[in-house]
Amino acid sequence: MTRSPPRDASRDLYRRSKPRPSGSSPGAAPAEVPAGPDGGGAKLVTSLANPVVKTLRGLHLKKERAESGLFLAEGLKLVTDALEEGWPIRTLVHAGRIKDQPAVRRAVATARARGALVLEVSDEVLTKICRRDNPQMVVAAFAQRLGRLADVPAPTGVWVALEGIKDPGNLGTIVRTVDSVGAAGVVLLGDTTDPFALEAVRATMGSLFHVPLIAADLQAFVAWKSACGIPVWGTHLEGAVDYRTVDWPSTCVLMMGNEQSGLPESHVRACDGIVKIPMAGKADSLNLAVATGVMLYEIRRARLRL
Amino acid sequence: MTRSPPRDASRDLYRRSKPRPSGSSPGAAPAEVPAGPDGGGAKLVTSLANPVVKTLRGLHLKKERAESGLFLAEGLKLVTDALEEGWPIRTLVHAGRIKDQPAVRRAVATARARGALVLEVSDEVLTKICRRDNPQMVVAAFAQRLGRLADVPAPTGVWVALEGIKDPGNLGTIVRTVDSVGAAGVVLLGDTTDPFALEAVRATMGSLFHVPLIAADLQAFVAWKSACGIPVWGTHLEGAVDYRTVDWPSTCVLMMGNEQSGLPESHVRACDGIVKIPMAGKADSLNLAVATGVMLYEIRRARLRL
Repeated sequence: MTRSPPRDASRDLYRRSKPRPSGSSPGAAPAEVPAGPDGGGAKLVTSLANPVVKTLRGLHLKKERAESGLFLAEGLKLVTDALEEGWPIRTLVHAGRIKDQPAVRRAVATARARGALVLEVSDEVLTKICRRDNPQMVVAAFAQRLGRLADVPAPTGVWVALEGIKDPGNLGTIVRTVDSVGAAGVVLLGDTTDPFALEAVRATMGSLFHVPLIAADLQAFVAWKSACGIPVWGTHLEGAVDYRTVDWPSTCVLMMGNEQSGLPESHVRACDGIVKIPMAGKADSLNLAVATGVMLYEIRRARLRL
Repeated sequence: MTRSPPRDASRDLYRRSKPRPSGSSPGAAPAEVPAGPDGGGAKLVTSLANPVVKTLRGLHLKKERAESGLFLAEGLKLVTDALEEGWPIRTLVHAGRIKDQPAVRRAVATARARGALVLEVSDEVLTKICRRDNPQMVVAAFAQRLGRLADVPAPTGVWVALEGIKDPGNLGTIVRTVDSVGAAGVVLLGDTTDPFALEAVRATMGSLFHVPLIAADLQAFVAWKSACGIPVWGTHLEGAVDYRTVDWPSTCVLMMGNEQSGLPESHVRACDGIVKIPMAGKADSLNLAVATGVMLYEIRRARLRL
């Protein structure tokens, strides 16, 4: 429908780099979720006591996601996106009545070929796994991928650094927007909400699988920024520079504070410039995901075309 | 901190107009929530069976909000905003330990002067009313205000029309953004999520009390638009006009489709122009609140200053 500008090179570099096992030792899926060439073969599961079902249900809990290194992707669109981007799949479950749909057959075949366990499950089981009425008909567990700054020694493109973001919906929405403007990736600074929480994954609408996520502390970020020379721009309500007056470079970091308190002074000091989005009404501030979206569309303004 | 452009005149006009009772006949708060000059007087309530507490807890349900015409505002900031804007208050409850704070005393005095019932309640009661740990220390029930297009026969400024918006968080965030850019108000078209749901109210961060909300169906909207001659611009993924190439008038309507399906053809036909926000990555679309924010900052671009 539209011409897409070429992706930033750093993004593809990142994709070619080896994913970090992030919590789970390589290949060490939990015993309840067999992975390997012999894990295939569809079985109908109706019991909530089934150990695979219990493991998938447990992935709602941060603790169990951290221990297993896994997370849930719901829906054929997200699962297909993840498979196309080569995310390591461990388990795929689906409703029986859609198994003959060509896209489902392809996803199942790909999952099996990559050693995942594939199960046909009842609607009740899907409802319990997704914890919602009208659950998705396809759900899969993938291994988490969270990169390090060392993976990106020579960044290009626009990166978003988020300080201590709290709301999983905001984080997912920001990842979706980063994808939408063709920015390079997201750096999660400090104590943040889990990007692999179900609500965050849902809010990305699949962009989680296209956008590199990196976790770092401020000290490592400052060292990285100095080493690679990438300019960092923060937004702050006390900023004196209108965000529309900057001649935005094609490579930079946009740093955003969290929902409650904005950018702390320590982070402001790490910035090369501070900008402000004008406000006209009685609202004190913008929602974080909206502010990030407004900023990204401005930073990428000259490079975005219909 | 910053100079604010003057508010759109229509907004003030709206504020001066009489609010619609919207469901409840004037003054007819439910029997469980006495309102009137004799309703004042602080009482300590610890029982969840207290009828006032039960009524407040019931306001989580759309049905009970619709029947009573009331809704909950949580937190001193929101309650104070609502009182300052003259929203009709019915009940105010607060924790005992903050009752001597000057701002709380002022809110309590204002609520009593307007005939509201004021109760001091236990933390457990507040937790149950707010349905969350660490609840706000002040919660109040106000009468809903939902205007009609007839209230705005000569609109000025930028209005946002939302078709069938589904997510209360998105709706609240959009109301907050409308406030932030100094736009005029929001028209809710068709079958929408309830703007007075707790999650929507929370997401407005108080802007609910500053931004006029109007409910209408498409037929009434088209008649209104034709009668008052206000131009309507829709956004659509199939749009051929870059949203940044329009010479945005100071008075217009921005029409946005819902989260799942965008603008239906019937609504596209009601528009004078259709624009598109460029997309660069693999994401299919932007989050609705982000897209609305990006659009509003563009439409108001020339009129917003630091």
